[in-house]
Amino acid sequence: MRTAAAIFPYLAFDPRSRVPFYKQIYDGYREAILAGRLRRGQRLPSTRALAAELKISRLPVLNAFEQLLHEGYLEGKAGAGTFVRDSIPDELSKPLVVKDGRTKVRRIAAAAFVSEGIGPFRVSLPALDRFPREIWGRLVARHGKRLPIELMAYGDPAGHAPLREAIASYVRAARAVNCEAAQVLIVSGSQMALQLCALALLKPGDSVFIEDPGYPGARDALQVSGAKVIPVQVDSEGIDVARIASQRKRARVAYVTPSHQYPLGVSMTASRRLELLDWARRTQSWILEDDYDSEYRYASRPLGALQGMDTSDRVIYIGTFSKVLFPALRVGYMIIPPDLVGSFVRLRESLDIFSPTLYQLVLTDFLNEGHFARHLRRMRSVYHGRRDAMVHSLEKHLGSTLEPYNTDAGLHLSGFLPRGIEDREVVRRAAQAGVVATALSSCYAGEHRRSGLILGFGGASERRIQAAASMLARVIESLRFR
Amino acid sequence: MRTAAAIFPYLAFDPRSRVPFYKQIYDGYREAILAGRLRRGQRLPSTRALAAELKISRLPVLNAFEQLLHEGYLEGKAGAGTFVRDSIPDELSKPLVVKDGRTKVRRIAAAAFVSEGIGPFRVSLPALDRFPREIWGRLVARHGKRLPIELMAYGDPAGHAPLREAIASYVRAARAVNCEAAQVLIVSGSQMALQLCALALLKPGDSVFIEDPGYPGARDALQVSGAKVIPVQVDSEGIDVARIASQRKRARVAYVTPSHQYPLGVSMTASRRLELLDWARRTQSWILEDDYDSEYRYASRPLGALQGMDTSDRVIYIGTFSKVLFPALRVGYMIIPPDLVGSFVRLRESLDIFSPTLYQLVLTDFLNEGHFARHLRRMRSVYHGRRDAMVHSLEKHLGSTLEPYNTDAGLHLSGFLPRGIEDREVVRRAAQAGVVATALSSCYAGEHRRSGLILGFGGASERRIQAAASMLARVIESLRFR
Repeated sequence: MRTAAAIFPYLAFDPRSRVPFYKQIYDGYREAILAGRLRRGQRLPSTRALAAELKISRLPVLNAFEQLLHEGYLEGKAGAGTFVRDSIPDELSKPLVVKDGRTKVRRIAAAAFVSEGIGPFRVSLPALDRFPREIWGRLVARHGKRLPIELMAYGDPAGHAPLREAIASYVRAARAVNCEAAQVLIVSGSQMALQLCALALLKPGDSVFIEDPGYPGARDALQVSGAKVIPVQVDSEGIDVARIASQRKRARVAYVTPSHQYPLGVSMTASRRLELLDWARRTQSWILEDDYDSEYRYASRPLGALQGMDTSDRVIYIGTFSKVLFPALRVGYMIIPPDLVGSFVRLRESLDIFSPTLYQLVLTDFLNEGHFARHLRRMRSVYHGRRDAMVHSLEKHLGSTLEPYNTDAGLHLSGFLPRGIEDREVVRRAAQAGVVATALSSCYAGEHRRSGLILGFGGASERRIQAAASMLARVIESLRFR
Repeated sequence: MRTAAAIFPYLAFDPRSRVPFYKQIYDGYREAILAGRLRRGQRLPSTRALAAELKISRLPVLNAFEQLLHEGYLEGKAGAGTFVRDSIPDELSKPLVVKDGRTKVRRIAAAAFVSEGIGPFRVSLPALDRFPREIWGRLVARHGKRLPIELMAYGDPAGHAPLREAIASYVRAARAVNCEAAQVLIVSGSQMALQLCALALLKPGDSVFIEDPGYPGARDALQVSGAKVIPVQVDSEGIDVARIASQRKRARVAYVTPSHQYPLGVSMTASRRLELLDWARRTQSWILEDDYDSEYRYASRPLGALQGMDTSDRVIYIGTFSKVLFPALRVGYMIIPPDLVGSFVRLRESLDIFSPTLYQLVLTDFLNEGHFARHLRRMRSVYHGRRDAMVHSLEKHLGSTLEPYNTDAGLHLSGFLPRGIEDREVVRRAAQAGVVATALSSCYAGEHRRSGLILGFGGASERRIQAAASMLARVIESLRFR
């Protein structure tokens, strides 16, 4: 057991009370132990420190502790200090703590924890095993060891200025985004970006077009202001813009993933892009471009961002480092039309003021010193290999059952299941075998729900992918012929 | 200039097009430079890397680069690579980038940046100069250097489990909060905590009681769901609970700062606390307890948290490390009644999924190894000294003009200004002299706005406090006798 400095326990102590000091201290600590506010093995500050804290002489504190030691509430450990005793009988300490509600809490919290870890086929998980952790760690240590005082205080809600410059420079060059650094807003990821859009652009009762099937996280986020989502079908060219344009109901916002549609993997064609921009201009609506998974294409060249084709400032561009670097970084960004920048920054401030500074500094160096470009380049070939392993393994084990399509980009692929096989049941059984598939049906908001699987191949090695595909085949076969 | 790896610029390249490869590449880069997507001094990948990326031979790339170099768009630097030329004439590159909106953006963003830095009297700023940066830096380096892969992936939206344990143990002991770790939710600070409460507990049109004067950030956050705030007067015992109980209009929520009211510094009396809890129980309403500035009291013992007196699970407790450690950390916490935990965790997940992992690990060690307790203990005497310096300096320089009250706790004090002196004008002029005061009138939401100043004393040394008080006196005198 470490002998760490102890927190001063709260004590209802009143120097003007008629109750003797030692009695107040004894009663206070005894009650704190019985009520479970002080727990077994927890260390107490020294009697000297407590006396100083209470601005009284040491004697009453010593008397109170003597009594508590004698009655078995505390125990002294030579050279280590005074601790709440490990062996307080359950009958004494438990009844006051345990409530009916408590066990329930633990269960709820565990169920709500959605992260299924780092199992094979987990969607949105990058190749963490290939991340340049040494370089990153060196940059973290560089900035973490002596953060300048001004960077420990409150930061700019829009983000650290040099990082905004570096991101602007990256998206201009790599994604043909048309922007200045002043339009860049640093957020904690695309989820927060969508929340900000909902809060800034939508009122209760407003409508927002979403892709169907689409990303469930976006659906949740966009409904936060009480907006109604209108699902619009995705076909082989992307979202069906004609249906958007012909809707009698006006919507203020359309949410799209043009580079690599989630979950189907379609790239929105150039003509659809122009139609969508035209709709937004005519109706003065906003397009939220989630440039999901745009970094990795295995067959053709990446498409430029929709934002770069926009001449009327109707597009809000959303990007994140969760998938090109790692999720626990929690850094994403938005490129906002000039007229909206002020209101988005104020909103972000009221949401949670600003993003932690350390990782913003580290990321700035990572971008400016070329580590990012190098990492992207290496990852392209790693993911290419994993994509190939995935396609071949599925072909080998599930050739007749699950045909993947649109496999030339991103970190996941999708496929429909034959009629009669329920995807949620496949997912449930696969999870028991340690394989983390995602049910395609969970991505539909409209009526025409289809059964299928979304399988990530970014986070697992080629060997693990092969093993997981074989496991998945067994799960599906067991359902098929039962 | 560093020779960092370069990002692959976006290029509309089509291998099936009839336009020769070299021409597509030449046109693409020329246009990217003229449109400002590639900027002066920006490095391009090598011709070899570009050819590999485009899956073509190197020759067309060499031809295109030759032409771009010849025409002055690019320049080669011996041993460093190829760069966009520094001296592209303004007439060529500028007109396409500059838009009317752009300059406006820069102005807006600068104005929206609320952090007034680290000037003396800045409210909510702790003694960053006394923070144990060596110890903290060592912990950051320990975890940052080799973050385990599973901690680089998606984390628990409720927070890192050992940190939740450590916080539960701290608030139970130090604040007499009645909780288990499963009730602790890690957030990015009290601002996000308030947003979550608004989204979870309030519908458009609902009412929420707030303190008047009160914390403007809370007012903003609580209105996010379209709730109406009802300001309730604060007197010498805290918020006037009788007015809450007698309101004809029902409110679902009351937001209070019982330990150290912001901005007036009052501690809510025990009888008021009981009345408030009774109101919440009777009306099935929620109390949001922002345990603001509870760690530092200079005269009397700290009061326990309101949450610890609650027997009907009506209190949501909010705490933050922004002021006891440093703001750029962005870690705060909530203690949530058992029945609400599930819905708060799901909401937090839809808001921004989870908090960055690194600082959660660092903070866990900082708490468990006793550094936190030691830091609090040291800071108590530092702030005591600064508080005294503040009170004496104000007495000396502003004795007849600004009388501070409730000076025995927290990191700031407040005082009313004499009639006819406008606090915003004092703040504006003080800012020009580098002194960051806050206008008391900005904290009123009701009609009875009073002029005064809120002055932080946590972030500046005793010497700087003395100088700033003298400067502030001159500013006020100049307004008084003009």
